[in-house]
Order: sequence, then structure tokens, then C-alpha cells
Amino acid sequence: MSAEVARAHLEKRFTRLLQLEEANAILSWDTAVMMPPGGARSRAEATATLRALSHEWLTDPAVGAWLDEAESTPSDDPWVAANLRKMRHQWLHATAVPSDLVDALARVESLCEIRWREARSVANFTHVSPDFTELVHLVRKVGESKGEQLRCLPYEALLDQYEPGARIDKVHALFTELEKDFLPGILDTALTRQQHRNRPRLPAGPFSVEHQRQLGLRFMRELGFDFEHGRLDVSHHPFCGGTCDDVRITTRYDKENFTSSLMGVLHETGHALYELGLPRTWRWQPVGRACSTSLHESQALLIEMQACRSREFLTYAAPLLHMTFRSEDPAWDAENLHRYYTWVEPSCIRVSADEITYLAHIILRYQLEQALIAGALTVADLPIAWSEAMSRLLGITPPDDRLGCLQDIHWYAGAFGYFPTYTLGSIMAVQFFESACQKDSTIRINLSNGNFTPLLTWLRSHVHAHGSCLSTDALLTAATGRPLDAAVFKTYLRQRYIEQG
Amino acid sequence: MSAEVARAHLEKRFTRLLQLEEANAILSWDTAVMMPPGGARSRAEATATLRALSHEWLTDPAVGAWLDEAESTPSDDPWVAANLRKMRHQWLHATAVPSDLVDALARVESLCEIRWREARSVANFTHVSPDFTELVHLVRKVGESKGEQLRCLPYEALLDQYEPGARIDKVHALFTELEKDFLPGILDTALTRQQHRNRPRLPAGPFSVEHQRQLGLRFMRELGFDFEHGRLDVSHHPFCGGTCDDVRITTRYDKENFTSSLMGVLHETGHALYELGLPRTWRWQPVGRACSTSLHESQALLIEMQACRSREFLTYAAPLLHMTFRSEDPAWDAENLHRYYTWVEPSCIRVSADEITYLAHIILRYQLEQALIAGALTVADLPIAWSEAMSRLLGITPPDDRLGCLQDIHWYAGAFGYFPTYTLGSIMAVQFFESACQKDSTIRINLSNGNFTPLLTWLRSHVHAHGSCLSTDALLTAATGRPLDAAVFKTYLRQRYIEQG
Repeated sequence: MSAEVARAHLEKRFTRLLQLEEANAILSWDTAVMMPPGGARSRAEATATLRALSHEWLTDPAVGAWLDEAESTPSDDPWVAANLRKMRHQWLHATAVPSDLVDALARVESLCEIRWREARSVANFTHVSPDFTELVHLVRKVGESKGEQLRCLPYEALLDQYEPGARIDKVHALFTELEKDFLPGILDTALTRQQHRNRPRLPAGPFSVEHQRQLGLRFMRELGFDFEHGRLDVSHHPFCGGTCDDVRITTRYDKENFTSSLMGVLHETGHALYELGLPRTWRWQPVGRACSTSLHESQALLIEMQACRSREFLTYAAPLLHMTFRSEDPAWDAENLHRYYTWVEPSCIRVSADEITYLAHIILRYQLEQALIAGALTVADLPIAWSEAMSRLLGITPPDDRLGCLQDIHWYAGAFGYFPTYTLGSIMAVQFFESACQKDSTIRINLSNGNFTPLLTWLRSHVHAHGSCLSTDALLTAATGRPLDAAVFKTYLRQRYIEQG
Repeated sequence: MSAEVARAHLEKRFTRLLQLEEANAILSWDTAVMMPPGGARSRAEATATLRALSHEWLTDPAVGAWLDEAESTPSDDPWVAANLRKMRHQWLHATAVPSDLVDALARVESLCEIRWREARSVANFTHVSPDFTELVHLVRKVGESKGEQLRCLPYEALLDQYEPGARIDKVHALFTELEKDFLPGILDTALTRQQHRNRPRLPAGPFSVEHQRQLGLRFMRELGFDFEHGRLDVSHHPFCGGTCDDVRITTRYDKENFTSSLMGVLHETGHALYELGLPRTWRWQPVGRACSTSLHESQALLIEMQACRSREFLTYAAPLLHMTFRSEDPAWDAENLHRYYTWVEPSCIRVSADEITYLAHIILRYQLEQALIAGALTVADLPIAWSEAMSRLLGITPPDDRLGCLQDIHWYAGAFGYFPTYTLGSIMAVQFFESACQKDSTIRINLSNGNFTPLLTWLRSHVHAHGSCLSTDALLTAATGRPLDAAVFKTYLRQRYIEQG
């Protein structure tokens, strides 16, 4: 068999795999948004079957043979070569784990996610802890198996699922530096400085769900979201799901607080724009998919933090908000909104945290998940460990589990090694945005007209259109002139939170 | 390998198959209810892949060998034996068709369904005819292949997909008799008799969608629909989909006419109650699924036609409708509603037809689909043939294709041989309802209190709980004391439409 024939076999197989994955993506959206509670158990069964199947297709011995053959004659086409690298990466992860473990994990993940929803609604971790104990046990086994295959630590192998090629020593050094050298200083300085400023006011509600929704839809359209290829719905935990032809974002509406849903929608729209901009030539191949979780997150954070929390955008948005809610409340003033959206305040909840305390939330999760996987922390001790870490990093203690270790879905859906990608994404978002604004000086000024076209154009060509053709680091270097650089990020945070008025 | 081991293999395989089928059922609901238009093409690809896969699993040579082995030692347990029969039936159908044909058909079906929606919205058959020509061509090939395997005509083989064991000579004799001997007479007599009665009045709208929806939900609850295990949504063509743990019915709302959506919801609720009542012991096996399409339809028709168009139920419902719409309109009077819901009037649309002209709609479709499959009618000639048949059977001509051959989704989704099951279901519905009322004299009177419990109890134990353990005919005989009997049906129609006041 020639390398070319082997490649053709591989491309056909991965097309099927991606189609199956997309069917699962819609089912998973449905589970969070549409499914009645009584459907949970059989949905878990069905999903587990599809995932087991995907695993079978990928671990079929023929795939390994095709990969060996295809790699024996390297292609000059960078897309073809990158596609093979992505396939090998997926194959390495899949073949590391025995079928029965994949199957067991899928079942426990589905059930655990449902238990988590219940536990969260009653604010009681013990409701989910038996299933979660089983889940952590299985994830640890997966990490161990993958670590053997990839010759690395179990946790590094889990991280590699989201960040292909990420090195734990680099990630560890980054978080250690941020925790010890950077965070305490900037947090202290920012809080001290804020004492001399007026506290921003939260615009007073109530805000009708319909008004919130209409505004969300409007901003999505202005950002470039294509409703021929997507939807906006409601779920407990906002997310971006579906497929790149049918991108579905969700939000939740708080009638007393519009500001959170607004930024949530803008954030998820950033994710959606990335999906919608992926290269269509490679529609059903791994190289046509997202590059890494951190890159995906960078696209969401860039839209939310850099573009939409800017003075420019808020100057544009403030009168629209004011008008929509027909309110005389001066809290809708752009200057107040900007202060509100850049106010630093330690709190228990990650998703509503400011950019500085957000670092603490990620450091906490990174440390605790490492400890859970290493077996240094038991599930039973998680709520206490969480409280202690919150107290150490931010000086606060969550009043209950809902505001503590039950706030995020990730772990309960089996995602360990995922949290660090938020901080990696934050750093990359700053690098991308600063480069974009340097290359095209109209980007920033256009935000004050609600015109995102120049920004989106830059992102489309420098980020989205590359799919997975380059590694995350190579793409970042090509687009910004440098690899991941925490210094750029720190300078940005100092400017926004300390130096600017 | 022992028969027992073979059975265990089969049960495992069919569990997987049913799980895949259920995933597809949710995707198919999503396509009709949620999907943005731009997702259509890739959804069609994903669905085709899942169906091809299902076909591979079923046609795997091992399945044939297991079936032979398992059948070699017949089981004493009627459920086990029936389960094997259902498996063999599915296997016979699946192995008759080559994989590439299954694949091609799935793709064309998905696209054709989308083109049909577009064609319907512009009332122009030519918009869908190229894709539909290809679809009919492929369905004919499927019928031919299955006919060879089952040793019957192509159309009979297609019918057998929905009605296991149905004989074309019996079906043909039934429809011929209804068309020639029964329909002209009863239609004429009913119309003549109506000339001496007041024409029923349609309650005047507008009816807010929210009020219609709330009433639909209320009646669903009263009928016994469990919202822990189901939903009510909106789609162009009402249907009952999802899984038996997560039954999803849809309706469409007409702001000017509440009566149609109401009966639509009650009809689909009848389907849903059957799904919710299937035997849980056999949750993931063929014998635990619906017995046949006609039986499914009988459960919907029984609820709609026998239970809810009765004087008893309408006497209960009328004041509720009156109150909900806060209207003084005397058209909400129970007597008027009963006359409205049993008024005979030739019209172009099947789904809103009365019980008598409904027969004509099915006879028409039965004849045309037979001709399409036999090649005696070309797709290009369909609109004309449709008009001619409508004129011959009901004396009317559809003004455009939307009210003609574009009104139903069935053919455009590949369902040929399906339409006759509506009439089979109508006959069975009458038999079931009359037997139920004979056995439990409280059933009918309780409908006037909105209490469906006695009726549902009878249906649960005499119909739903049997799954596919008995053939349709055997179940009907066990529950009503006789096999399919058009005489009972004709007597019922004469009583309701001619003799009663």
C-alpha cells in the first residue's frame, strides 16, 4: 500500500469519526438545553455507546498501520502533513486506553454530570461525591495509561488532550511565577488604588428576559455571528457547542443583573466566531478543527475582555442598553460600565471574576486537580481543600459548596487538565489583540461604532483560517511575532488595572 | 456455540443498534425543531453515517449466524421468542439492501426533506422534483431488493417495513372495497344529511400562542403525559419523536384557528402514551418497541377520534376553552364543537380531514405511491395525477402543490408503504375503543370529567405493555376478540355520521 492510499483510508476514517463526534456534540447540547430529566439515564447509555464506537474506529489496528505507512513518505503540503500529525495525536491518546475503561468512563461522566446538576441545586457536595469518586478514579487510570504511552506524568497526559504538546514544567513554572511573584502584588495594588475611586454601580433591574435576549442577539449579529449557522439558547452553565456549520451558544438570564449575561453572550460569541471561521476545505478532517483549547479560549477572551470591556465598545453599547431598558439609571453611563467591567474584587465565583482574581481561580483549580489525579487529595477532602485555597489566594471562604467546588461543570464531566487553558488563553488573547491593533489602527476606533469587521477580518486570516495547520505556539508566533509571553500579559494587566484612570 | 450464547450476542448487538437509533431519533427531532438552515447539509452527512453504521451492525455476517443458532432451539418464553422474530425481521430487511444503496438513500432522504420544506413554502413541486425523482428511483431499488429477499412485490416489501407480515392482497381488497362499495355511499349520505343541519361555527380568534400552548400542556397532563419524560415543541409538520424515556411531540399554532392545534396535540399525545407505556423490562430490545406503525397510529387515533371528539370529552373541554380565551363566542358551546369536530367536508388537506374523507386521502396516496414504485407514474406527472384523483374521489381540485402533493412529508423523507397504516390504524382504533368501553363501563363517562385514567389503564394493560410480543393481528384479537374487521369500523362511521343527531 502506498502512502497516498494509506492517507486516503485515513481521511475516510476520520471523516466518519468527526461526523460521529458532531452527532454527539448535538446530543450533548440537547442534554444541557432540551432534554427532560427522565431522559437522562438512557441518554447516558446512548452517548456512551457512540463514544465507545468512536474509540473502536480510532483504535482499529488498521489505523495504526495506515499512519505508519502514510508517515513513511512525508508530504510537502503543510496541511496534509499537519492533518497526519493531528491524526497521530488522537491515535496515541485513544490507543493508550482500553475499550472497557473508555466505556466505563463515558457512563460515569454522563451520570456524574447529572448528579452534579442536582448537587448544585441543593448546594451539597456529598450528593455527587460517590459518583465523583468513581469518576476521579477512572480519570486517574486514563491519565496513567496515557502517561505510559506518551512517556509523561498522568496529569501532563491529561493536559495534552486539550493542549497538544504542552509541557508540564513550563505550565508549572508559569503558574508558580504568577502565584508567588505576580498575583499578590498586583491584587494588593489594584485594591488599594480602588479605595480612592468611586465604586461602580450595578444598573438596577429588573431586566426582562426578552429584552436581554434581544440585545444579546443584536450584539451577536454585530460581532459577525451568522444565524443561518447557529443559535442562542439557555442553559445552567453557558457554553458554545454544536458543529462549525451549526454553532450553538447558551447563556443564562438573571433578571436582576444584565451585565453578566451580556458578557457571557459576548464571550461565547468569541468561541462561535472561531468555529465559524475554521477552514471549510478541511471541513471533515482533524486539521480543519480547532487548534487547541487555549486557542479557542483566547478567541472568546479576546472578544470579551479586550474588545468588549474596552472603553470604545462600552461607549457604543451604553446608549443602546440605556434605551432598551428605558431606564433613567445613570449607572448605564459608559464610564461607570467600564469601571464595573474592570473592577477588581475577590469573589467565590470564577465565571464572574475580574481578570486579576481570575488568575487565582485557575491556580486553585490547577493545584487541586493535580492533587486529585496524583492521589494526594481525596474527593472527600475536596470541599475543605477548596476553602483553604480560596482563603490563601483571595482571603475569602465560600459559604457553601455551590459557591465552592460545585460551581464548575468541568471536573464532573471528566475534564481534568482543562483549567490551565483558561490562563494560557488569557495570555494569548492579549498578544493577539495587541498585534491586531498594531497592524490595523482602525480596529480599536471601529469598536466605538459597534463595527467589528476590521477585528474579525484580522482574526479570520491570522487565527481562524489556520485551523490546526500550525501548532498553537507556531500560530501564535506567526501572528504576533513571539511565542507565549506572560510579560506582555502582565504589562497589560498593570496598565488596565493600575496605571489607567 | 449454544443457542443461549447466540441469543446473548444478539441482545448485546441489538441494544447497541437501538441506542444508535435513539441517538438518530433525537437528531431527527432536532433537524425539524431546532437546527438553523445552514446546518442542513452537514447534518445530512452525519445522519447518513449513523444510518450506514446501523446497517453495517445489522448486516454483519455474525448476526445471521447467531440468528440461525438461536432459532435452532426455540425458547418457551414468548418474549424471548418474539424478540428473535423481530430481530430476524429487521435482519431480513437490512441484508436485502446493499450498503452503498442504504448510504445513498439516507443522503438523498435528508436533502429531499429539506428541499421539500423549501418547495412547500413556495408552493412549487418543481423545486423538489429533481431530488424526489432520485429518491423514488432509490426507494424502488430498495423495494426490488427487499421483494427478492422476502419473495413478494417491491411495494409489499416496502409496506412490510411498517407492517410486519402485512399481505398486499388483503390490503388491496380492503382499499378496493372501501373505495368502490363504501365511500361513495356514506360520503353522499352524510353530506345530504348535513344539508338539514346548522353548519358548525369556528370559534373566532385570534388565539394567542401562549394560551394555546398552555391548554395543550394541560390536556396532555390530563391524558397522562409525563413531562419528566417528554416535551411539547413547534414544527412545520406535527410529529411524535424522541425515545420512550424522552418522548417529544410537536404541534403548530394557527392564531386564527385553535381547533386544529388542539386535536393535533391530542393525537400526538396518543402516540406518546403508547411509547411511554412500552414494557421497560425489554427497554433496549426489539420486542420492547412498538408493534407496528398501524398499531402506533391506532393509539393516536383512539385518543383523538374516539376519546376526544366524543360528546363526553367536548362537554368537559368546552368551558375550559371558553374560559381560557375569555371569549363570549357561543361557538365554544360543546354541541357546536362536537358538530365541528364531526363535520364531513371534502377538502384538500389530509391532516385536517374528517374521518370519512380521510379514507379518500389515504386511498389516493396508496394508489399513487404504488404507481410511483411500479414505475407506472413518473414523478413529473405526480401533481396532475394527484389532482385527478382528488377530483375523482372527493370532487375537488387543489389550487396549488402545497395543498396537493407537497402537503405531507412522508414520501419526501423516503416513507413509501406508510400511508395505508393510517386506515389500518383507524379501524383498529375503533375496535380497541369499543372493546375497552364494553369491558369497563366507566371509561366513557369519565371522559366527561377529563379523567382518562380508566381508559389509559385499559390501554396500558391490553395494548402498550405488550410491546411487540404479539403480532399486530394477534394483539388485536387478544384485546378485542377479533382480527382486523372493517365491518366494525363501517358500523361506527355510519352511527357517528349518519344515524346520530
